[in-house]
Amino acid sequence: MKVLGVDPGLTRCGVGVVEGVAGRPLTMLGVGVVRTPATAELGHRLVAIEQGIEEWLDTHRPEVVAVERVFSQHNVSTVMGTAQASAVAMLCAARRGIPVALHTPSEVKAAVTGSGRADKAQIGAMVTRLLRLAEPPKPADAADALALAICHIWRAPAQNRLQQAVALHASKGLTR
Amino acid sequence: MKVLGVDPGLTRCGVGVVEGVAGRPLTMLGVGVVRTPATAELGHRLVAIEQGIEEWLDTHRPEVVAVERVFSQHNVSTVMGTAQASAVAMLCAARRGIPVALHTPSEVKAAVTGSGRADKAQIGAMVTRLLRLAEPPKPADAADALALAICHIWRAPAQNRLQQAVALHASKGLTR
Repeated sequence: MKVLGVDPGLTRCGVGVVEGVAGRPLTMLGVGVVRTPATAELGHRLVAIEQGIEEWLDTHRPEVVAVERVFSQHNVSTVMGTAQASAVAMLCAARRGIPVALHTPSEVKAAVTGSGRADKAQIGAMVTRLLRLAEPPKPADAADALALAICHIWRAPAQNRLQQAVALHASKGLTR
Repeated sequence: MKVLGVDPGLTRCGVGVVEGVAGRPLTMLGVGVVRTPATAELGHRLVAIEQGIEEWLDTHRPEVVAVERVFSQHNVSTVMGTAQASAVAMLCAARRGIPVALHTPSEVKAAVTGSGRADKAQIGAMVTRLLRLAEPPKPADAADALALAICHIWRAPAQNRLQQAVALHASKGLTR
């Protein structure tokens, strides 16, 4: 499975592509950051993010795009920009028919470090180890994007089993 | 000036086109709602909103798109969807080179009713009167979109004068 992880943000949108399956060593295919200038108009920043995400989709052709699920109770000053950048990433993926998966920050932290309350340094260290990199990806947004992709690869089998079980029950008329 | 007003929302995105200049009677050229099913995946909903907004831009070719400025302190349960829908509207406009203007809900209310704290019924009544309609546009999201467009037409002259004054000062080296 090839997954593009997106850590959404207006100023820095982290992007990272990881290939692999649960239980096997993972491979990083690319990592980077889509940046937009804080001085630009909001509409133009969203267009720049769209262009950046489109380039990553063109280059890597991921099967899934994993985006951080944004909560409104987070940092009030940045949450709107995060929501808007995530909307652009989801739009780009869905427009191409690529499934979009959302994972919460604590799901991502728990997946790669074992703790839903891990800090940035821990995430960077584990991403470096799991992808066998020479050093932690920088900035942190890039490492977070890779962590999202890893989280999705590892969680997908459980999610698929759950969906299959629900579908099976539904086909038997056991649930609506 | 022809303005497309957008009252962003995932379930109901109000859209309304108004033509006119400040100080002259206004004309409504169209009003409607772009709807997406709450049961659909978020990515697909954003694609449906994009398609809806694109149709309105194709049909009416507005010179400006006026979008409600979303604040994170509002209703927590809907604000993320509102931010995401507004991002799509801004993206569609900016991609075509159409200027995007943001107005706060209280600016819009004050523009059409004289009070920044007016309720939905007051806004509907004033939109109906100002555009000489037979009855208030429904749902409220459609009326709000028209109010946004009216607000922009009426505020634009003042905003332009301000921008010209800033540009003049800047050209004289009076401000940085």
